[in-house]
Amino acid sequence: MRALRLLAWKSEPEFADVEEPRPGPGQVLVRIAGAGVCHSDLHLMHDFEPGQLPWGPPFTLGHENAGWVHALGEGVTGLAPGQPVAVYGPWGCGVCRNCRVGVETYCENPEGAPAPGGGGGLGIDGGMAEFMLVPYARHVVPLPEGLDPVLAAPLTDAGLTPYHAVRRSWPKLVPGSTAVVIGVGGLGHLALQIVKATTAARVIAVDVREEALAHARELGADLALPSGEDTAARIKDATRGTGADVVIDCVGNDATLGLGAACARQLGDLTIVGIGGGTLPVSFFTLPYELSVQTTYWGSRPELIEVLDLAARGLLHTTITRFAFDEAPEAYARLARGGLTGRAVVTPSADRA
Amino acid sequence: MRALRLLAWKSEPEFADVEEPRPGPGQVLVRIAGAGVCHSDLHLMHDFEPGQLPWGPPFTLGHENAGWVHALGEGVTGLAPGQPVAVYGPWGCGVCRNCRVGVETYCENPEGAPAPGGGGGLGIDGGMAEFMLVPYARHVVPLPEGLDPVLAAPLTDAGLTPYHAVRRSWPKLVPGSTAVVIGVGGLGHLALQIVKATTAARVIAVDVREEALAHARELGADLALPSGEDTAARIKDATRGTGADVVIDCVGNDATLGLGAACARQLGDLTIVGIGGGTLPVSFFTLPYELSVQTTYWGSRPELIEVLDLAARGLLHTTITRFAFDEAPEAYARLARGGLTGRAVVTPSADRA
Amino acid sequence: MRALRLLAWKSEPEFADVEEPRPGPGQVLVRIAGAGVCHSDLHLMHDFEPGQLPWGPPFTLGHENAGWVHALGEGVTGLAPGQPVAVYGPWGCGVCRNCRVGVETYCENPEGAPAPGGGGGLGIDGGMAEFMLVPYARHVVPLPEGLDPVLAAPLTDAGLTPYHAVRRSWPKLVPGSTAVVIGVGGLGHLALQIVKATTAARVIAVDVREEALAHARELGADLALPSGEDTAARIKDATRGTGADVVIDCVGNDATLGLGAACARQLGDLTIVGIGGGTLPVSFFTLPYELSVQTTYWGSRPELIEVLDLAARGLLHTTITRFAFDEAPEAYARLARGGLTGRAVVTPSADRA
Amino acid sequence: MRALRLLAWKSEPEFADVEEPRPGPGQVLVRIAGAGVCHSDLHLMHDFEPGQLPWGPPFTLGHENAGWVHALGEGVTGLAPGQPVAVYGPWGCGVCRNCRVGVETYCENPEGAPAPGGGGGLGIDGGMAEFMLVPYARHVVPLPEGLDPVLAAPLTDAGLTPYHAVRRSWPKLVPGSTAVVIGVGGLGHLALQIVKATTAARVIAVDVREEALAHARELGADLALPSGEDTAARIKDATRGTGADVVIDCVGNDATLGLGAACARQLGDLTIVGIGGGTLPVSFFTLPYELSVQTTYWGSRPELIEVLDLAARGLLHTTITRFAFDEAPEAYARLARGGLTGRAVVTPSADRA
Repeated sequence: MRALRLLAWKSEPEFADVEEPRPGPGQVLVRIAGAGVCHSDLHLMHDFEPGQLPWGPPFTLGHENAGWVHALGEGVTGLAPGQPVAVYGPWGCGVCRNCRVGVETYCENPEGAPAPGGGGGLGIDGGMAEFMLVPYARHVVPLPEGLDPVLAAPLTDAGLTPYHAVRRSWPKLVPGSTAVVIGVGGLGHLALQIVKATTAARVIAVDVREEALAHARELGADLALPSGEDTAARIKDATRGTGADVVIDCVGNDATLGLGAACARQLGDLTIVGIGGGTLPVSFFTLPYELSVQTTYWGSRPELIEVLDLAARGLLHTTITRFAFDEAPEAYARLARGGLTGRAVVTPSADRA
Repeated sequence: MRALRLLAWKSEPEFADVEEPRPGPGQVLVRIAGAGVCHSDLHLMHDFEPGQLPWGPPFTLGHENAGWVHALGEGVTGLAPGQPVAVYGPWGCGVCRNCRVGVETYCENPEGAPAPGGGGGLGIDGGMAEFMLVPYARHVVPLPEGLDPVLAAPLTDAGLTPYHAVRRSWPKLVPGSTAVVIGVGGLGHLALQIVKATTAARVIAVDVREEALAHARELGADLALPSGEDTAARIKDATRGTGADVVIDCVGNDATLGLGAACARQLGDLTIVGIGGGTLPVSFFTLPYELSVQTTYWGSRPELIEVLDLAARGLLHTTITRFAFDEAPEAYARLARGGLTGRAVVTPSADRA
Repeated sequence: MRALRLLAWKSEPEFADVEEPRPGPGQVLVRIAGAGVCHSDLHLMHDFEPGQLPWGPPFTLGHENAGWVHALGEGVTGLAPGQPVAVYGPWGCGVCRNCRVGVETYCENPEGAPAPGGGGGLGIDGGMAEFMLVPYARHVVPLPEGLDPVLAAPLTDAGLTPYHAVRRSWPKLVPGSTAVVIGVGGLGHLALQIVKATTAARVIAVDVREEALAHARELGADLALPSGEDTAARIKDATRGTGADVVIDCVGNDATLGLGAACARQLGDLTIVGIGGGTLPVSFFTLPYELSVQTTYWGSRPELIEVLDLAARGLLHTTITRFAFDEAPEAYARLARGGLTGRAVVTPSADRA
Repeated sequence: MRALRLLAWKSEPEFADVEEPRPGPGQVLVRIAGAGVCHSDLHLMHDFEPGQLPWGPPFTLGHENAGWVHALGEGVTGLAPGQPVAVYGPWGCGVCRNCRVGVETYCENPEGAPAPGGGGGLGIDGGMAEFMLVPYARHVVPLPEGLDPVLAAPLTDAGLTPYHAVRRSWPKLVPGSTAVVIGVGGLGHLALQIVKATTAARVIAVDVREEALAHARELGADLALPSGEDTAARIKDATRGTGADVVIDCVGNDATLGLGAACARQLGDLTIVGIGGGTLPVSFFTLPYELSVQTTYWGSRPELIEVLDLAARGLLHTTITRFAFDEAPEAYARLARGGLTGRAVVTPSADRA
């Protein structure tokens, strides 16, 4: 079968013929409906040297995947051929404390994982092909009724990542509280909807782009503010001086982290979701008391089930642009150039479905 | 001033002239905009003998109250005359573990309370008068902007009670979960809205009356089922066999408790809010494993603030029928006869406002 | 190899020769160091009719097991031959919501489990043999350093069951709170130690037997009370009138449940661990407000790891009486007669170890 | 009466005669048994300029206080003359969200507080006198039976501060987890005991002084390590490579914060308790995933009750050196020079008690 593969570090991906995989014991072969096109793939193509990661090319790209069960390896239970499924992307060792409860993002035994810190499309063959081999059945998650696998694909990463960040702050998002979402892009526009769907908190969206703010308003933001010198002050004003209970920073550069710290409330959360390379100096006298600052990375398997439920019930909308399989390189090119509307999803099975 | 007072056990309330109260140190005088007409008042009028409760008549009725600060006693801070406020109804001792954090419903030192287990309108003069004396300023809660005090009055009880019951179950009301609300009346129609506003759980409403089920659907219930022999089975079907994660029983008779137990999920909550006189036999083999069964009573002061926020932001609607002060006896009569639309609220200041 | 097997309902177990099992893909063969002798085995031998359970004889007894990894099936990672391990006893489907996070006691798809509601020693061959086949590697839990597998065996059930019950009540077991443990037998003497080791709550132990109360005092109970008419009153006295924050009922008959309800505090927990056949009538006016009443059953895999850690560090002591493999029938006979000191553990590998 | 007062910024405190205060409505006069001598007082004496704080001299020192109720103002309930009490030190506005539940450390309306960000001994007359006026009765906390008020005094700050920091991390301090306490001084030696008393976590103590490490071992530390280049590595070794679940940094300089970040576990807590002036740069790639970094400041009123319970039950020992009232200046001098054993407590009522 044909697959879009990264053949070497610092190169563009290419189509190549690979053998159609067959599932061994405990494995699942998934026919891919949709494979999301993600910024981190561009990073993979362009920014790594050999030896920098514990794994490397060649491998098939695509780490946001959904489709249908095509074949089951020996001993797999609870799944049936033809069943629509998503692929849980972070693949850990499966046996450490975190993996045992589905939090494979924080695997504590990465050398026991298929690709340490990686997964399908990240060191191992991913979903930019007609079929994808999922080496452990636990990484296959049945879709709830009514959810199109093409739409489900980006939810496994762009949806799951902000969902995890918001969910851990639920106890602080009570009625009367305020969440600030910084950056209304791929992750942020979903973060905003997730807060609205799962809590009664007010949401203030912040972005540098006016069209992003308009989008935030359409999606239900209670207030949308341009990023600027007075943004923290305006957030304080809008919260009667207390500041934001929770800040979800989907950008993560020095400026946005500084804004987050300046507008946050005592006892709040400032969660760094975006990998913008910023650093926040934390000290006793520069932050509100007991503001918790943390990064989060991707999400857990149980959380993915919850994200899919939200989407199936119409509470979480992802705007996508579909690309035929042949157009996958073009999808990456347009992502690199900017200007894509929503998430690009490549649909390897579209001609056959 | 005139007040609607219960003058003796087993009697109808009567208008009487009482002296306008003046606030002492730490006290607040509230001009009443709305005083809710509650079923438990009928119970008070008709069902008690002298000596049965630690307090008794004569006192002014009305335990669901909101209005405006009229005068402040010495030493009261954080409030200003004219400010719209609600009155937090359960008045405890103020010094026990629970009272100190605003959970006065569960006061552990009731003999230290103004009326043990009671409050304004329950053994002490309440809000069925132009003015109500609140003996401790902590029981006065400022209204958020935009909330009509007449609408706020019933929220202090009919809103706060189901809010407390739902809020304690939030950790179980994750996306993909189901809440069953039994009884879509005064408490239940608010319980339903509270689940929808504060979580992404599905809501199944159950009632014996078709018009109540229609109301539930209008308010956003995902499913509304008549109460009958197959109701538990239909709930199981609607939850893929697992049952309901949380059951809020706003009726509380033997039949509804039995339904709750029959449709609940392992690890779920079955919360008895309605005082319908029922009993549920709990044993190892008759209930799902680790289903938590508990009553709840009214709610806490911090929770009242959250309820008011929901209402001010349009996330919680109470249907009310307004009655002029003179019509208060008629309001009770219509409540006793049945057929009121929504909650009756008496408006002692309506002619002056 | 020889195994102690239940060959028919309503019969005593017998030694029989069975083939030594070989682990298939994903399976583990465990050499058994200790197999606990449990009251529920007596129940199995004597009280069931054919068709009453979804599984039945013949099978090898023993559902509290620990030993050493003997052989690994294909694809098993994270374990090595010779490694000391415990066997997590409740075997669920492995794919439902609860099983995925290690809560297999509450499997929601029991028809997908090896023996619905059962496990090794409960419908499937258990640990009363030199070797036990564990059909899914996830049920094998490595022992922490320094923990004798013979001592670990009863912890998988008699330790895990009260641990789960206590752990879920941790948020209520703050300094100043009181836990009441009813029944200081196999489960209760461990429940008591678990409260002391993991919280700063006071513990009041209740039992009908004076020697059990003496044992409770030795194990650190702050107060040990005989069960009687004034027990609830004495507990109220000892808690300045508030009652117990948490009651762990390790007996579970009508009398102990009534005691639990009578001595519990508003907002507390009354958890039914013992399967004594009792029923507690729950209604609005007979229990303290918001006392949560629930059963619990066994515990989760992550919790078993925590129990084993407590024991390895000397914070949890189980008194056991060791029996050679040949003496296993005698162990059951003595359990039936009463008078065993602590938990009986059969040691099939003792001659070889 | 005589009082030890700070009369001007940048000066040593002096004895002065002040009028004996009389409690107004809602106030309490406390006869002081013990007033703790705290490092922050030295900071107050030496490091501030006029105008730098919203309050200033002259005022009586002493912000860690306990004694006996001497006289009650009008309307105070729940207290009786002669009753031993501690004074809750952080005095907020009393009406904001946090103050209403006893978290006055994080008052959101400090201009409504008696001294914004301060309290008795911090801008308002404190406990270095025979009597102290407590302006709001809610700041008076009854002592549990058997607790000497002289010992209780330092618990209101040196005990409460680490208690709050440890308590908020309880959910992460499960059996098998590890807490690292950096700095085994006034706060740290209590932090260590608090972890041991309230959880089953292992404790690793870190200090630069060998005698502090010996003290830590006596107090039950599972491991005590000198601070050095390999400390983080040794903590990783002692935790099988995972790192510490919770770090309580009672020093808070750049080096200790760096150590905390280097030895912490994914999903852990790094809590900055010590005001050592350090800064920790937080970014996506320099810290473990989802390590929460936060400061904490003092503690809440409900937490103080819990701390006092621990001490009364012998689970929390403070080493103190008693000073007669006349010797108070000497106590400060010795604190400044170093070499005090434990906490210095001045006892203004010692001659009369």
